[in-house]
Amino acid sequence: MSRFAARVEVTLKAAVNDPQGNAVLGGLHSLGFSGVRAVRVGKLLTLEIEAPDEEDARRQADEMCAKLLANPVIESYSAQITDAP
Amino acid sequence: MSRFAARVEVTLKAAVNDPQGNAVLGGLHSLGFSGVRAVRVGKLLTLEIEAPDEEDARRQADEMCAKLLANPVIESYSAQITDAP
Repeated sequence: MSRFAARVEVTLKAAVNDPQGNAVLGGLHSLGFSGVRAVRVGKLLTLEIEAPDEEDARRQADEMCAKLLANPVIESYSAQITDAP
Repeated sequence: MSRFAARVEVTLKAAVNDPQGNAVLGGLHSLGFSGVRAVRVGKLLTLEIEAPDEEDARRQADEMCAKLLANPVIESYSAQITDAP
């Protein structure tokens, strides 16, 4: 078994309203950042996975995204595997 | 004025405890992903910024991170600017 690092990005789909992003946008405007036009907030997860090989680690990461890390109805995800954590 | 897209990554510093990451780790174990050893959860923000040039957009993005998007005491951040949103 080797240890792999996975980097998972979860973002809201473009058509989905993002209240958290809108709150951040309002906060930035209040602070005087008037040039900001839009903000979207997503998640960035880093995982350490023990797996026999990189292919298996990638398969596991994709399955984790589909089952728990992302909500595929409203979110998109991508998982990258790197060798060392 | 041109419009730039900024990609901001905010992650907890290594020494800081991550209860959200630990909750996700527990959830993954419950689902049978026993090979997962650690999970850290961070934020991934995408912003659209109107600025005279890329240099100014970068300066604004860094300032937003320091003032609102990240808590520099416990979080690290990095901002990248790309031309088109």
